[in-house]
Amino acid sequence: MRQSQLFTKTRKEAPKDEVSKNAQLLIRAGYIHKEMAGVYSYLPLGLRVINNINTIIREEMNAIGGQEVFMSALQDPELWKTTDRWNDDVVDVWFKSKLKAGGEIGFAWTHEEMITRIVSQYLRSYKDLPLFTYHIQNKFRNEMRAKSGIMRTREFLMKDLYSFSRTEEEHEKFYNECAEAYMRIFNRLGIGDKTYKTFASGGAFTKFSHEFQTLADAGEDIVYVNEEKNIAVNEEVLEEADLSEFGVTRDELEKQKSIEVGNIFSLGTKFSEALGLNYVNEEGEEKPVIMGSYGIGPARSMGTVVELLSDEKGIVWPEEVAPFKIHLVEIGGDDEKVRAYADDLYKKLTTANTEVLYDDRDARAGEKFADSDLIGIPTRIVISKKTLESGMIERVNRKTGMVDMVSEKDLLS
Amino acid sequence: MRQSQLFTKTRKEAPKDEVSKNAQLLIRAGYIHKEMAGVYSYLPLGLRVINNINTIIREEMNAIGGQEVFMSALQDPELWKTTDRWNDDVVDVWFKSKLKAGGEIGFAWTHEEMITRIVSQYLRSYKDLPLFTYHIQNKFRNEMRAKSGIMRTREFLMKDLYSFSRTEEEHEKFYNECAEAYMRIFNRLGIGDKTYKTFASGGAFTKFSHEFQTLADAGEDIVYVNEEKNIAVNEEVLEEADLSEFGVTRDELEKQKSIEVGNIFSLGTKFSEALGLNYVNEEGEEKPVIMGSYGIGPARSMGTVVELLSDEKGIVWPEEVAPFKIHLVEIGGDDEKVRAYADDLYKKLTTANTEVLYDDRDARAGEKFADSDLIGIPTRIVISKKTLESGMIERVNRKTGMVDMVSEKDLLS
Repeated sequence: MRQSQLFTKTRKEAPKDEVSKNAQLLIRAGYIHKEMAGVYSYLPLGLRVINNINTIIREEMNAIGGQEVFMSALQDPELWKTTDRWNDDVVDVWFKSKLKAGGEIGFAWTHEEMITRIVSQYLRSYKDLPLFTYHIQNKFRNEMRAKSGIMRTREFLMKDLYSFSRTEEEHEKFYNECAEAYMRIFNRLGIGDKTYKTFASGGAFTKFSHEFQTLADAGEDIVYVNEEKNIAVNEEVLEEADLSEFGVTRDELEKQKSIEVGNIFSLGTKFSEALGLNYVNEEGEEKPVIMGSYGIGPARSMGTVVELLSDEKGIVWPEEVAPFKIHLVEIGGDDEKVRAYADDLYKKLTTANTEVLYDDRDARAGEKFADSDLIGIPTRIVISKKTLESGMIERVNRKTGMVDMVSEKDLLS
Repeated sequence: MRQSQLFTKTRKEAPKDEVSKNAQLLIRAGYIHKEMAGVYSYLPLGLRVINNINTIIREEMNAIGGQEVFMSALQDPELWKTTDRWNDDVVDVWFKSKLKAGGEIGFAWTHEEMITRIVSQYLRSYKDLPLFTYHIQNKFRNEMRAKSGIMRTREFLMKDLYSFSRTEEEHEKFYNECAEAYMRIFNRLGIGDKTYKTFASGGAFTKFSHEFQTLADAGEDIVYVNEEKNIAVNEEVLEEADLSEFGVTRDELEKQKSIEVGNIFSLGTKFSEALGLNYVNEEGEEKPVIMGSYGIGPARSMGTVVELLSDEKGIVWPEEVAPFKIHLVEIGGDDEKVRAYADDLYKKLTTANTEVLYDDRDARAGEKFADSDLIGIPTRIVISKKTLESGMIERVNRKTGMVDMVSEKDLLS
């Protein structure tokens, strides 16, 4: 894409009420727009990043057998009364509204009830199991506070997968497969080395559930970590847990701030019993289905990447997440030869299906480089009178700052 | 995808309270799930269709210069008060909710205010114009009645594009380009021959706006059509319009029911003046931007395709919209050779990147064919003991019912 066509521009300052680093950088670079506290819109660059993250998540969820659906945000109160989760005293994050046709309606903050009812329409026998469904959809949560940028918002994209299994063993097997898929996702997002599968407060049916916590100063959570042994424990379970189970002592754990980037829960038969989701086993007996729930927030992941990988000049995107792979920067554009060469190279790169942001603006070199650093595309290619004369192209690595000269032929291959 | 793995199954009956043909067929075939009146979830097959429709829309919007964004559903009341559209007496489809942190919040039923404010952050000079942005996002409308299946729902995906132009001429040029793009979309959706660009009630700034109306018995609208002259007029403007402007007389127009599948509006400077969206022209003067708004509902389009193109056996998807291109149906699967051949062909087709639904279920041939007709994939490939003996493959065209025999080689090429 030609940068002169991109309607967003970089800004010197973020809004004054924006205190989080991730939102400040993303706003300044033109990725997102702050609508109000805890609500952001995604601009062209930001949407490209979210789409890339969603693609990674989809690939990993499909690889473990996930079937994608798209469930509604609007929720029927009757459905939630069956599990006693409609009441505001039980669930304190509901957005509810009056229905003109009469009655109330809710906006989904999660989807266990809905997916259980849907699956109950189709599930009959043990032959239909196991079954894994997921969706990526906006969720709404009436949060009291929202000051962590795009990491805690009142409206946010969420991938949630739900698993349906016959036995505890079958459930455990998928639970572990999904945990491995999550680590692959965080590795691809570039935050794997700082992300731990932690022991967290158990659900109703297991001693512990697990969270994926990324160590970061901007985190709202506290974990106790032993990096060497790759063990992390959430603060809430530190006292109740027998740490020897995890193979560490209290002294070996270091207190750190962290961001919850994912979680996986065993749900047991809570929802299947409440909503009558049974299957007939090999012996002809009706049994409740064993369920699990597995969440990742694409926007929170995006915010975490920015918190972790940015530097004093701006954002540093990992390859798979970046809105474009190459930032082609042409300087000295009043020179027709430089402009023509850059135009031609842009065409060649896009024809080769490389995602390129081409800074073809009439602007000073210093401004272009500062914007390029702020936007954070992994590889910068500089075309100038100097490079033209040398017959080579300047390539800058955003992360390391390393500069090398390559021939056009090598670049295109 | 293997049909034995697909968690949905076809059903003999749709829910009793479902009166629309599109939702009845889509529910019976396993494309959607009815959550409550006017609210549907999309199951794996249905999501594939929606994604295909979104791809068509994106391609056509990108081709006319559209830049995709993703705006929030949550809306700030203060923003809507600037255009006097917050008040329930003015806008009667709002869903509103209390914000726990204090105050009210709205759920977007359209996005003019929001996009105008976003663009005003970046737009300065005539050099930044024209500019076209669009998004595909859930909208919420507190409809009194909802009985047209997925064609009128309380929550629905909508593509809306907003245009920003300097002059009336520039606006008109894009308005017409977008109208042409819309006809390309409806052609690709397979409903172009029944879809008319109609004259509708004008916005605030032009005598007429335009709608795209598809002739269908299930329509909630009335248009007056002359098919030969390719002219259609909405009922509301029939009396006020000077029909000679359109080159027809009243007698030449036939009353027909129709579905509004798209609309395009000139907005003039209503929103730019209310929200201070100005640009500096070549003479250094501040001028308000001229805007337009252009909507298409992917789900309503999907419903319209089903209404128009289904037959007594089920749905008939056009090629570009179908959830899969080929329905591979293996019959006589107790014969190991038949099963092995079908498995092998499935692998070859998917390796060649063909989207195949492979009916590998243990079921009678009659049931498989009935399901295949209901699901409506354009091409059915039948593998049986008979076809194996003949050395050829049976191919059935869902739309025409035509059957021919092809070699595997011809099929794969």
